[in-house]
Amino acid sequence: MADIKVGLFGLGVVGEGIVKVISNARNANAEIRRICVKNPHKARKVNLDKAIITDNRHEIFDDPEINLIVEVINDPDAAYEIVSEALRRGLAVVSGSKTMIARHLPELIELQNKYGGSLLYDASSCGSIPVIRNLEEYYDNDLLLEVKGILNGSSNFILSRVFDHNEDYDKALQTAIDLGFAEADPSFDIEGFDSLYKLIIITVHALGVYVKPEDIFVYGISHISDFDINYAREKRVKIKLVAQVVKISDSHFTMFVMPEFVPKSRYIYSVDDEYNGVVIRGECYDRQFMFGKGAGSLPTASSILSDIVAHHHGYRYGYKKMAYHDTPVYTTDILLRVYVRYSRTPVIDLLPFHSVQVRYNSETTNYVIGEIKLSDLIACKEVLMQPDLFIINITRFFNDN
Amino acid sequence: MADIKVGLFGLGVVGEGIVKVISNARNANAEIRRICVKNPHKARKVNLDKAIITDNRHEIFDDPEINLIVEVINDPDAAYEIVSEALRRGLAVVSGSKTMIARHLPELIELQNKYGGSLLYDASSCGSIPVIRNLEEYYDNDLLLEVKGILNGSSNFILSRVFDHNEDYDKALQTAIDLGFAEADPSFDIEGFDSLYKLIIITVHALGVYVKPEDIFVYGISHISDFDINYAREKRVKIKLVAQVVKISDSHFTMFVMPEFVPKSRYIYSVDDEYNGVVIRGECYDRQFMFGKGAGSLPTASSILSDIVAHHHGYRYGYKKMAYHDTPVYTTDILLRVYVRYSRTPVIDLLPFHSVQVRYNSETTNYVIGEIKLSDLIACKEVLMQPDLFIINITRFFNDN
Repeated sequence: MADIKVGLFGLGVVGEGIVKVISNARNANAEIRRICVKNPHKARKVNLDKAIITDNRHEIFDDPEINLIVEVINDPDAAYEIVSEALRRGLAVVSGSKTMIARHLPELIELQNKYGGSLLYDASSCGSIPVIRNLEEYYDNDLLLEVKGILNGSSNFILSRVFDHNEDYDKALQTAIDLGFAEADPSFDIEGFDSLYKLIIITVHALGVYVKPEDIFVYGISHISDFDINYAREKRVKIKLVAQVVKISDSHFTMFVMPEFVPKSRYIYSVDDEYNGVVIRGECYDRQFMFGKGAGSLPTASSILSDIVAHHHGYRYGYKKMAYHDTPVYTTDILLRVYVRYSRTPVIDLLPFHSVQVRYNSETTNYVIGEIKLSDLIACKEVLMQPDLFIINITRFFNDN
Repeated sequence: MADIKVGLFGLGVVGEGIVKVISNARNANAEIRRICVKNPHKARKVNLDKAIITDNRHEIFDDPEINLIVEVINDPDAAYEIVSEALRRGLAVVSGSKTMIARHLPELIELQNKYGGSLLYDASSCGSIPVIRNLEEYYDNDLLLEVKGILNGSSNFILSRVFDHNEDYDKALQTAIDLGFAEADPSFDIEGFDSLYKLIIITVHALGVYVKPEDIFVYGISHISDFDINYAREKRVKIKLVAQVVKISDSHFTMFVMPEFVPKSRYIYSVDDEYNGVVIRGECYDRQFMFGKGAGSLPTASSILSDIVAHHHGYRYGYKKMAYHDTPVYTTDILLRVYVRYSRTPVIDLLPFHSVQVRYNSETTNYVIGEIKLSDLIACKEVLMQPDLFIINITRFFNDN
């Protein structure tokens, strides 16, 4: 008899992976007792006893044998309902829903404290790379200065096709969709929101501070043009969609998601295809680099399994850094050096550059390289959303990885 | 007042690093209360109150205020005495002494169980890279297939100078010694023993099995010649000193340390200079790569701090995989494909090759490429120690990373 009796919500790509991984992990001592799905009559790709499938969540919540809820459904609102109800019942939950967690984390922490349940979600950030738990436990001290990485496999796959396979952006996007590395509506990935939500979760465990999604600058790769790609190629750098949280002083930190020119000397330069890579920088240990498959059915499922087993051994996130007496304060009052390419939008008039280093004008395309405050980028989001414009971070402000 | 009151054994490179790191980590809530050293009158490079230095270990053991022993002394016998005495007293210990731990781990586990003390030693393997704790906790299931990596910074630094800077081996070795990346007597590093001891510790946490050092094949890089280096360059591969533990079936695993031809496509190809890199491969998550500074004063000290804080939060290694009902069995009954270069030693007569694919003979240098059992390599260690001979693994048996 298994010790861990799982009630599973969701039987999509990740849910099916969990079914496979749990049956492979002979010593994990876990079994799936019941699976709640939207449509119990849908054909499934995995072998399982159909009798355990239900569309009634109470068959999981009210089953006294089930001692762990695993939630891997796509809809963040439904995920929130299920996870918050489970926590209010004092249950233990493992979740992979990054959007839901990033939006509701303070409340989810409160629910754990109030009702004694627990919530683990290592799979929600970077799939199989154990970022959250390492930040919470191993880098459990205030020596941490920066976490920076490629957190989204789809957009990285597309940019890899462009830079390593010389495909143009539209063809690369289509390849990603055809191979299943991007959704039919890829905007969540390529506009940077997937990276943003992961970054929010990472920041809670890196610095002990929760920042709301709407307060963070996020800018994706959908406006990239051949001009930008050629510019990067000429400079022998790649354009990557980078998420970062950085301490800029003892008292302050900043965070954002945007495309960045990445030279060959950086670790994340060689994070290609659908892979994720995270650089953790600290005062004493310098840089550590973790690299692996950030998404996909089995990698994500194996991370879920890791959380399942950790829960079984009594593990819960301590959120210890949130209790530090001097948690750093989030600021957008920093200067970034950026490249802004445009055709019609009067960028120089509309964006309040602090200084301008380069102006390039031609018949069809212009760009400017200058310094601008992150807070001004947030304020000018509407300008930046103009389809003829693309912005790329070339700031290295004080860091160098 | 600090919660964690450390009694520190050893004030060498790592000990001095610990003094610095603890004073930098404002939220760690730790202080060093007493330091036991061999020579209390020696000049020290760090600022500290001389009154806390002693050469009498009982001033630490008998101080009821001290709630954690940190041991970072070089002499493995003295380290064993101190750590085992501390554990017999039921104390909590953090140690960085890989040789001592690798030699005595079963007894040290028993002492923890018997007297209720605890022992953490993440710093002992790969310095600042959190390999042990991730293997114990995150990869806490039987999906793990392989851990393979570059675990020794000194030998890797030397090989990097050879392959990336075109230095010859002797000059590279001298550079390593001059820059402090290798000891004046570098044999512990370059003959593979440092890697071996780390691999033994890793294997306990990867597969739940302890294997004695004397039962494992270890072969270093000191016999490397210009011929080997040129051969590797021509084939566009690097020679790296690689430690690996690999499951070869559901029931068996093997492990060894030896030079290996590493092609560009492998993650460890780009682990250069004094860095360490570890690839963790599993059934579902494919490959994960962890990369960072494996040694040095501050990186090692920050790993020690991580263990100090983990202990404070009640963490102890569970050695859970040792309790699996089907822990795999160590075997050396596997075929490796190797390159053996020699001048005088009659290699073909003395080594029982299972098959030979290539024979090369010239006036000065010969080599053979063939398959040979790992158990036969162990049995023929004396042959392999001939100074005119060098052996390099080119086996990829069933793995491909």
